[in-house]
Formats: sequence, C-alpha cells, structure tokens
Amino acid sequence: MDPRPIGVFDSGVGGLTVFRALAAALPDEALVYLGDTARVPYGPKSPETVQRYAREASRFLKRQDVKMMVVACNTVSSVAMEAMEEGAEVPVVGVILPGAQRAVEASRRGRIGVIGTRATVASEAYARAIHDLRPAAEVVSRACPLFVPLAEEGWTDNPVARQVADAYLAPLREAGVDTLVLGCTHYPLLRGVLQEAMGPDVALVDSADSVAEEVRRRLASDRRLAHGPGTTAPRFFVTDAPGPFLEVARRFLGEPIVHLERAELESAPAW
Amino acid sequence: MDPRPIGVFDSGVGGLTVFRALAAALPDEALVYLGDTARVPYGPKSPETVQRYAREASRFLKRQDVKMMVVACNTVSSVAMEAMEEGAEVPVVGVILPGAQRAVEASRRGRIGVIGTRATVASEAYARAIHDLRPAAEVVSRACPLFVPLAEEGWTDNPVARQVADAYLAPLREAGVDTLVLGCTHYPLLRGVLQEAMGPDVALVDSADSVAEEVRRRLASDRRLAHGPGTTAPRFFVTDAPGPFLEVARRFLGEPIVHLERAELESAPAW
Repeated sequence: MDPRPIGVFDSGVGGLTVFRALAAALPDEALVYLGDTARVPYGPKSPETVQRYAREASRFLKRQDVKMMVVACNTVSSVAMEAMEEGAEVPVVGVILPGAQRAVEASRRGRIGVIGTRATVASEAYARAIHDLRPAAEVVSRACPLFVPLAEEGWTDNPVARQVADAYLAPLREAGVDTLVLGCTHYPLLRGVLQEAMGPDVALVDSADSVAEEVRRRLASDRRLAHGPGTTAPRFFVTDAPGPFLEVARRFLGEPIVHLERAELESAPAW
Repeated sequence: MDPRPIGVFDSGVGGLTVFRALAAALPDEALVYLGDTARVPYGPKSPETVQRYAREASRFLKRQDVKMMVVACNTVSSVAMEAMEEGAEVPVVGVILPGAQRAVEASRRGRIGVIGTRATVASEAYARAIHDLRPAAEVVSRACPLFVPLAEEGWTDNPVARQVADAYLAPLREAGVDTLVLGCTHYPLLRGVLQEAMGPDVALVDSADSVAEEVRRRLASDRRLAHGPGTTAPRFFVTDAPGPFLEVARRFLGEPIVHLERAELESAPAW
C-alpha cells in the first residue's frame, strides 16, 4: 500500500483520455496530471527534442513525489521512455506495450494497422512491440498529422473529417488490415469517421483502457495499490495559460477541474 | 551604412517566405534567421507564453549583433511586439502594419477579410491597424487553424484543401470582402485554393513583400543600409534538430542552406 499519487504526463490535453480511464479503473488512487501545453505538439518534433522535454517532465513529476509515472502521449512513449526513466526511481508505464498487447489480442488474421504522429510512426515502436508479441504479424503504419488539428478544431464528424480519414486510411484498407491501433490520444475523438473509413469489420484499438489495466497490474504486483477511504481531488499542471485547458478538460472529463496550476518546465535562458 | 546583419525571427519555417522577400529586395544585406522549431506552432498558445518565447528570441538575436529585428511570424507580431522590443536596442519590424497598409491600398470598397491563427485573430491586431489607416473600413476576421497543418502536409491543391478552404472562407465570401489578408506566413502556400474559394475579384494580400519595403524604408531613413561588395551567406538557427528544416528550407528558398546551427533558447530547468 502506497498512498502517493500516480503521475500522468502528456504533451497537452489528449492524455486526459488516459487520465479518465485511470480515474475510472482506480478510483482509490490520487492522480497528478502534467500537460506541456506551452510546447505541444510533440508529434512533428525530433526524438532528441522530445527526449529533452520528457526529461524535464520526469523531473517535475518526481518533485510531486509520485509512485509511478504514466506516459499518456504516444510520441513520448515511442521515442523517450528511457529519458522518462532516467532518474525517475519509480516505474514508468507507456502506452505502446499495452496498445500492442490489445491489438494482438484483437487481430484475427494478424494484419495490424497503426496510425499516429510522424514521430510515433517513424520510431516503429508499435511495430516492434507487436512483433515481439506475435512475430508473424504484418504491420502497416501511416502518419496522419491532420487528425490532431481536426480533433482540436472539433471537426470530428463533418465532410472534411470524412475526406481526411478516407485519404489517410485508404492504403490501410487496401492492405486488408483487420485491426487498427489509434496510436495518438486524440484519435478516439475521431472514432466514428475512422470506423466508417475502415469499414465495420476492422477492430479499433485505443490504448487508454489497456494502460489502466497495466497500471493496476504493476501496482498490485508491487503491493503499491492505494486503498480508501476516498481520495484527494486530482491535481492538474499545465505549462501554458490555464484558461483554454479548463474548457477542453471539462469536455474530456465531463466534470470541472478543481486544482489547476501553472508548471515551469523550462527556466529562464542563461544569457 | 551599417554592415551588421538583419535578424529574422519566426516560430518555425513559415518565416522563410519573409526571409526570401528580404533577400530578394535587399541583396547587399547580411541576414540571420531564427526559427523556434522545437516549440512551433505559436498560434494556439496564450499571449503570455508567446511573449516569453519572443523575449528569448529577441535576446538571442541581440547576441548575434543584428542592426534590426524583423518578426516574420504573424502571431508574434500580433501579441508580442513589446516583448521583442524589450532590451532589443534596435528597431523591430513586424508584419501587421505593412500587411494592413497593403490591404488598405488594395481594397476598393473597404471590406477587408483577415485570416490567421487563433492567437492572431483573437488579438485583433490587424483590425486595429486597418482602422488606424482607414477608420471606415469593415474588417471580418476568421481563425483557420487547419491551414498550417494542411500546408505542412503538402496538401495545398487537393480536394481536402479545397473543402477546408471553402468551410473557413464561406462567411468571408458571404460578407462580401473585396480583399483578404493572408495573416500567417504559411498561407501563401495555399494561395491557389484560397483564391478559388474567394473568387477571382478578391485581392489576396501577403505581408512578405510589404515587409521588405518597410525594412528598406526604415534602414534608409536611419542611414543603415549596407552597400556591397557582396554579402556573407545567411546564417540560420533552429531550436529543434536541423535535418527536417534543411529539406523544407530548400523547398521554400529554392537553394540549399549553407550555415545552419542549433540555437538554445531555453536553458536547463532549475531543479
């Protein structure tokens, strides 16, 4: 039993889908969320820069005395897990392995599609994790950089969304994938048009639920699960101004946020 | 006569359109370009965060001993000119006033549309500048957050681009604007579909050329124009890994970049 909070890190607001799944699955756990809203998005950036940001986030969460770090961001999970773990001194759980696990379970014929940011797809992290679990699987990946801005614009179910989904997913459909990994926290918001573009027989895999299971498993095996009575309200930290985050978070979580603070990840320049 | 370079600042690669216009109009001037590619885009971020980044960029350019700073980024020009000027000790030229000037000259009926990032449109900087020059003008603005990712994806002339342009520009077309300010450095890449969506009678205004004129005027009146013989090759600085910038820059400029370095705008965190 360890009453310390679990830290959830994301490049911005998308990780709230993972946060919500954790809160639902583990209602006795205290949660701390960090969104690097001043430097989002990470997807188009180089691994080196994402690693630097991950190191800063890890140090910040360590200062919050968390018992585990959950990396909700697929880009960070793909290219910067070691950077998160450096000096963390607590377990760090990413979204790639749980997502790959679920995809392998869902796939009947072993033809798995993966969509994500440029950085996630270029890293081939999902393909490696899937092959570790099922060496004969065929993995077809595609970077879909317009999906995040579409979701943030709220255009999740209009003709533009359908046309963009169709353009990105046509090669995956033609490759005959039977399972599609939504390798970015924003993509579940587009689930309707993605399912439509892929057809009803393709299973869509969203990491959020499988991450919550993995977190429970890890905490249970380390005997670190928290047990009532009740929890403190979750604390949220963002690096940009809090205003816009509050609105989006309310939409993602279905309830208002009580504790929201500004986090400083970068300090003033030296000159 | 002042042989020191002119510094050009942008949040990423888009400012290369302004850089190119400066290089063409002022071939005797040495140029230094800074693109904050590790933190791009600025458009969705709060004014406070953009101002912090602008302050860091201004200090960096000052260390390069520039005689003038040109802010190519519309978002920075809209919300952070004072932050750039703080301690700069040299003139700082943004894109808003030159763009507004050109729009007022181009508009026959005084109905002017402005498109830009969320931050640029929320600031109403163009509307204020236009009204200063022509108080009776009607200004209709619209944030178009999908245009930048569309341009970066290279989808500048396909059915998705046409549909997005049509969705964003319909209200401006219905408002009967006769002139449209492309209030973001990326938008000229979409000029074809924008013109198509607005119709052939609407004048599209791109700040890049008018900024070059303004820079020449300012340098001439301060007697700081450089005069041959020949110039040194321009120097480029970026904050993310240089690789992807090189490719995009070659496309924007039509020639390869010789001097490219990594710039550190943020230093290591304090804890």
